[in-house]
Amino acid sequence: MTLSPLNPALANTFAPPVMEARRWIEGVTFPPERPLLNVSQAAPVEPPPLALRQAIATASLENPAAHLYGPVLGLPELRAEVAAQWSAAYGEEVAVNQVAITQGCNQAFCAALATLAGAGDEVILPTPWYFNHKMWLDMAGVRTVPLPTGATLLPDPEAAAALITDRTRAIVLVTPNNPGGVEYPAELVRAFFDLARKYKIALIVDETYRDFDARSGAPHDLFTDPDWADTLIQLYSFSKAYRLTGHRVGAIVTSSERLAEVEKFLDTVAICPSQLGQIGALWGMQNLAQWVAGERAEILARRATISDGFNALEGWRLMGVGAYFAYVEHPSPLPAPDFAKSLVHEAGVLLLPGTMFMPETDPAGQRQLRIAFANIDTTQIAELMRRLAALPL
Amino acid sequence: MTLSPLNPALANTFAPPVMEARRWIEGVTFPPERPLLNVSQAAPVEPPPLALRQAIATASLENPAAHLYGPVLGLPELRAEVAAQWSAAYGEEVAVNQVAITQGCNQAFCAALATLAGAGDEVILPTPWYFNHKMWLDMAGVRTVPLPTGATLLPDPEAAAALITDRTRAIVLVTPNNPGGVEYPAELVRAFFDLARKYKIALIVDETYRDFDARSGAPHDLFTDPDWADTLIQLYSFSKAYRLTGHRVGAIVTSSERLAEVEKFLDTVAICPSQLGQIGALWGMQNLAQWVAGERAEILARRATISDGFNALEGWRLMGVGAYFAYVEHPSPLPAPDFAKSLVHEAGVLLLPGTMFMPETDPAGQRQLRIAFANIDTTQIAELMRRLAALPL
Repeated sequence: MTLSPLNPALANTFAPPVMEARRWIEGVTFPPERPLLNVSQAAPVEPPPLALRQAIATASLENPAAHLYGPVLGLPELRAEVAAQWSAAYGEEVAVNQVAITQGCNQAFCAALATLAGAGDEVILPTPWYFNHKMWLDMAGVRTVPLPTGATLLPDPEAAAALITDRTRAIVLVTPNNPGGVEYPAELVRAFFDLARKYKIALIVDETYRDFDARSGAPHDLFTDPDWADTLIQLYSFSKAYRLTGHRVGAIVTSSERLAEVEKFLDTVAICPSQLGQIGALWGMQNLAQWVAGERAEILARRATISDGFNALEGWRLMGVGAYFAYVEHPSPLPAPDFAKSLVHEAGVLLLPGTMFMPETDPAGQRQLRIAFANIDTTQIAELMRRLAALPL
Repeated sequence: MTLSPLNPALANTFAPPVMEARRWIEGVTFPPERPLLNVSQAAPVEPPPLALRQAIATASLENPAAHLYGPVLGLPELRAEVAAQWSAAYGEEVAVNQVAITQGCNQAFCAALATLAGAGDEVILPTPWYFNHKMWLDMAGVRTVPLPTGATLLPDPEAAAALITDRTRAIVLVTPNNPGGVEYPAELVRAFFDLARKYKIALIVDETYRDFDARSGAPHDLFTDPDWADTLIQLYSFSKAYRLTGHRVGAIVTSSERLAEVEKFLDTVAICPSQLGQIGALWGMQNLAQWVAGERAEILARRATISDGFNALEGWRLMGVGAYFAYVEHPSPLPAPDFAKSLVHEAGVLLLPGTMFMPETDPAGQRQLRIAFANIDTTQIAELMRRLAALPL
């Protein structure tokens, strides 16, 4: 059937990669002695702690407002909590009216982008990129300008400068990186901030995985710049730290003037963020700091296990590891998508090929794979390494 | 401060009207003997019934999946329930894969539109229009072609036909109408369907208020057409019937082929609808039919009270009434926005001027007002009529 009418920008946008990968395992039986190791999606597999679930349940029963419309830019108490914790974490005051809550961090990106760029404009994305960013740019008719990061997975500000044109509206950084796992050094983030300011474009910094950064202290010093809000749009997700993926709660931190534009977008696409999700996020921020620290320690232990594993695995090269991800070069003669599909049957492993994170024309994607290791514990990671080691390559 | 960079399409989109109106009452004191009557927004003021709140609380405590990612197009059980109830209500089978769940009906509109039209395309909106539809079209760079409905508030298919060009991608109907209150006759909806099919464009029918339609039986026969899904995109909201506005749950019913495109949009802007909201909506559909019937009877009683009131009120003309809305011509010499603002102080009433529902160039908006009467009970409606009658006009 030919769909008519059909917006060509949407038709030309690729389908959600995680869902495509899910189709690879449809109808496949995994024997009990070799169960599926699903490292395709960055998603907690356990629910939030019981006390948080209780806080949500209590709100459902006792707080009528939890079921009704709230402010477009989010619950004032949650915005205030983010402002207070950010001020403490980044060493400089972030004001309440510089914080907005969204239905997840993907929506935060969409809203931020909508304020910046329209059809025909350009946005620079380091590759490998986060595919949902690319999808939204395609739908909006915004041209994505890829910035290859090479062997280090770290983008180069000078290479980025060479890509800026009079249609460039923003550079997008994700740190800790999805899919690369690398944590961008503070000086690198600062160099991109200076570059964006020089060219009067925006710097979007997606810090979805900040709670799992291996470094202590603030991961960058951008907020200490008195005029940070003119250039910086920071994105955050409550989904990972508090295991609230099913509630859709994220945040945008930028100038109140830009948030007035964000408000128009969110009013039409959301009206308001889900109230119970916001109540859960607020409760988490106020009560789970110590629990999140434990979660981080567990993720760092998994990261160490996967680092050790790949360093001992012949033919493979660990390009980046951190947050929820390991990004690797594989030794197979097969192109990455074929190799990834074969791993479902040969090893009972579901992961994503590098081709999902860069333009088809970039040959690097054929040699690379992303492993979202946060979903499996250290025992399972050891099992993953055994299965990869046993492959007849 | 001049924001840079700034997407001109967003900058030229008007700010959310409901929020603008809310600013009119900021700092205003309403004496206890004349409290504010807020008829500006179509929103339940009471939470859902206790049993539904309990169902949500139980899911939060006992169902781990309620906190984690779900399918992009919604919970299979909720999609199946909608398909089954729609098949019964509209007299023809609607399949599960023709139903998608969204984070509210506004998002359903955004997603549907994204599949149809891009920058430079055109969409026909009868006026007065629902302002969030207009805002989204503006943001997307889609040209809105207004179709004035005149004294009856019913759009004319022949007038619509005369507006169709080779860039037209869809006609949007809202029935029962927001802001007009009128219920479109089944034959009128069918005439628009035939028109859309003839020109190979889409017909979007937003039935957010269908549960409060005064008529019994199916409000139109479009689903009985074997090829309905080629032309029709139906939108629905769970927010009004089950008082779930704070959970953001809506639906799109159309062809599975179009839903594959919708899936791309929703994956980037939402990832998945809020799980607890979907669980609440499903529970409501399965358990609250009788309760919703009582809610409908109450809304119809309020509607009768407001009809009688305006028919007895000199100088005012009730143009349309139904669903949550009365749409009226006012007798003041002031333009509608000034008159609306004056009502805050003169009568303790907050309502929206007709200018918020049509192009600035249409003089009709200056004479018209929307009253969202579902928020106030029959006693308060009687009080509203007394206050309007007492105005020195």
